Amino acid sequence: MDDATENGFPCSVARVTDLIGDPWTPLILRDAVLGVRRYDEFHHLKGIGRNTLSQRLRKLVEAGILATRLYQDNPPRNEYLLTDKGRDLFGVLAAMLAWGDRWLDEGAGPPIAMEHTRCGHEVHAEMVCSDCGEHLSTDHVQFRLGAGFPAELADRPDVRLRYSRDAAVPATADGRAPGSG
Amino acid sequence: MDDATENGFPCSVARVTDLIGDPWTPLILRDAVLGVRRYDEFHHLKGIGRNTLSQRLRKLVEAGILATRLYQDNPPRNEYLLTDKGRDLFGVLAAMLAWGDRWLDEGAGPPIAMEHTRCGHEVHAEMVCSDCGEHLSTDHVQFRLGAGFPAELADRPDVRLRYSRDAAVPATADGRAPGSG
Repeated sequence: MDDATENGFPCSVARVTDLIGDPWTPLILRDAVLGVRRYDEFHHLKGIGRNTLSQRLRKLVEAGILATRLYQDNPPRNEYLLTDKGRDLFGVLAAMLAWGDRWLDEGAGPPIAMEHTRCGHEVHAEMVCSDCGEHLSTDHVQFRLGAGFPAELADRPDVRLRYSRDAAVPATADGRAPGSG
Repeated sequence: MDDATENGFPCSVARVTDLIGDPWTPLILRDAVLGVRRYDEFHHLKGIGRNTLSQRLRKLVEAGILATRLYQDNPPRNEYLLTDKGRDLFGVLAAMLAWGDRWLDEGAGPPIAMEHTRCGHEVHAEMVCSDCGEHLSTDHVQFRLGAGFPAELADRPDVRLRYSRDAAVPATADGRAPGSG
């Protein structure tokens, strides 16, 4: 894990950002979910250069998110398939889709509709608590250092700045400051 | 909306990527959720340059994700607070956190623990269907052009490639190809 990207302390958001935090990778993953498998099909992403696409695909294969499979022998050609780890990333894409549909549609409605084939309805993803099933919001979560956090870093100023204050109720732009509500 | 980033057709994932698809913005948003508000505190993100940080904060303010509030008059200094739109982006961060904790902890356990104060348990985010409440996976979703998709683009090859096939059951690396299951 790259300490620079992790900003000197372990954080899953930083680790995921290290993998997908660029202008192309989320679109490559979206396409993989939509059934795109071959290099030239991914390359239909307008504006992506071949070097950039190759580098991103290689990084996703190295991370175990995509796996290659030979579909042609002569010349040899690989296709790219989501692994279980990659399929599980759909949670992140679905969250992006839901938020984008809600806040960025400029009143035109969602460009793409998602049907849940288990219930047959047009739906969006909702983020709920794994324990009680309630909607998860920043109002009702608190963060603290976990089992995987190195004890020797716990007292560093950049760590204490983020994890020692009452992090659950940051002030908001509409004035709901801690203790004021 | 930038057509280049949208690859020529409207897509919420592309729109969100346009806002947060870089190595820093998810970390700035994480810090905002953790209660960080001031420029110098955000700058504790090791490795981010001042120009880059200023540019990212400005972009988030322009997008209505952060709002500024004067906290000091002389010299004037703004702090950055999440708006309702920005707080709602927690869904994306929580999905990243859950996936990173599951797949990238290298056996050490989650670096950061999240408590849901409504139920009092240490939890992770789960992505469920807004209609039936079941877990959402790529196996059980189908995508089609929605209300906000321009009719004149529907027949373009790059659009048909992604949205006309049976997109719900892409082949996976472990061999579950369409029709083989």
